[in-house]
Amino acid sequence: MLLTSTKNPKVRRLMELQQKSAARRESGLFVVEGRRELQHCLEAGFEVETLFLCPSLCGEWAMPVCNQYEVTPEVYSRIAYRGTTEGVMAQVRARALSLADLQLPDNPLIVVLERVEKPGNLGAILRSADAAGVTAVVVCDPLTDLFNPNLIRASLGALFTVPTVACSSAECIAFLKARHIQILTAQLQDSQPYYDTPMTQGTAIVMGTESTGLTLQWRQAADRHIRIPMLGQLDSLNVSVSTAILVYEAVRQRRA
Amino acid sequence: MLLTSTKNPKVRRLMELQQKSAARRESGLFVVEGRRELQHCLEAGFEVETLFLCPSLCGEWAMPVCNQYEVTPEVYSRIAYRGTTEGVMAQVRARALSLADLQLPDNPLIVVLERVEKPGNLGAILRSADAAGVTAVVVCDPLTDLFNPNLIRASLGALFTVPTVACSSAECIAFLKARHIQILTAQLQDSQPYYDTPMTQGTAIVMGTESTGLTLQWRQAADRHIRIPMLGQLDSLNVSVSTAILVYEAVRQRRA
Repeated sequence: MLLTSTKNPKVRRLMELQQKSAARRESGLFVVEGRRELQHCLEAGFEVETLFLCPSLCGEWAMPVCNQYEVTPEVYSRIAYRGTTEGVMAQVRARALSLADLQLPDNPLIVVLERVEKPGNLGAILRSADAAGVTAVVVCDPLTDLFNPNLIRASLGALFTVPTVACSSAECIAFLKARHIQILTAQLQDSQPYYDTPMTQGTAIVMGTESTGLTLQWRQAADRHIRIPMLGQLDSLNVSVSTAILVYEAVRQRRA
Repeated sequence: MLLTSTKNPKVRRLMELQQKSAARRESGLFVVEGRRELQHCLEAGFEVETLFLCPSLCGEWAMPVCNQYEVTPEVYSRIAYRGTTEGVMAQVRARALSLADLQLPDNPLIVVLERVEKPGNLGAILRSADAAGVTAVVVCDPLTDLFNPNLIRASLGALFTVPTVACSSAECIAFLKARHIQILTAQLQDSQPYYDTPMTQGTAIVMGTESTGLTLQWRQAADRHIRIPMLGQLDSLNVSVSTAILVYEAVRQRRA
């Protein structure tokens, strides 16, 4: 069936799921755009509910999904975030992982993000977490839902390759303490340079927001406070850059 | 003098300098927005040619500049990239640094970027370069001009705190070789993990584009090829994240 107008109820529904977190929450559905992202999503076992293809853009592209619609290039250019490059979008059933679902290896390396505001930053962190082979990313007291389209896009699909959990800070702290995973909080006060801090044992690296940092709850739960030395004039690193520097220090210590 | 319309020639000129690199090149002028950015720009000795203030947004804000105009909030919201938060913009005289202008300490740490495409990535790299106390950033065969407003914005003003040079790859290679600065190129083929590579001596870390990597010219000029181990499924790190991981490894080796 070919959908030719953005007024079509199915197209309107798709756009609503892209734009409104409430619509995602109520329906348990979210939107994935792009071949590579959708491939990672399927490999992770997510269930595609509806597929939208723009044949003149995606060519022959088959997927065993019951609900499948074709859209015109005009409609596709209105619904796609990335313009008209790929021609593949899907509504996917959301699946929330909890801390109890995580399968922890010996000496896990976990990234904890408290109250991250920007979906783009969270997506960029997931991309680095995939590269560094991080065990899991835990988003505490989140201000954005995990299925925000900007997050998925910035992650290049890493949302589906890195186990990602949303929970409260109290739950996360209890989980880490019970498993004797050391808690390293990134903060400037009372801290030591990150590279003087052993990270070969089970480790959680905890990041706050760029503007206000971490709450007292996390600072007090920490085994050590670590900082990235700031040697310039601006005293400022992007939170996704800071996270990557810290997790790759753990990679270095574990492999060098 | 109060400017009340975006059709005013002075406002049109400002917008042209924001939007068109040709206009910047021909006039030798560029646009800086925001108090902090303008402060760093002045401290670096740049000359402000014209100042635009929106009094209801910036309050009392004085600067000894001959050409000074006030704009209405309506005009400001049209010319500002960041919305209406600060009320301060300026046309500034561009000043190109060359390699010969760089003052090198013992064991300099230089970031070289070949053909970086996105101004936002270049700005983000400058921000990390400031934090890591990098000696200079050299942009070889650039595809964007250094005074692109997205670059300045993403750098948070680091364009003015980190000496930044645009030149050809051939010039840069000759400069580094003549000063016995080791050349480390980031590439996957024939490379060793970055953390096994000494970086305490004078070092240039050379990054290519995310899509095509470095040209043969740089690969052949390299003293060593280094890579960031990729332990996930996506095989992909953002170029500004990669650069930050590598320069902070140099910081670690020099300070730990």
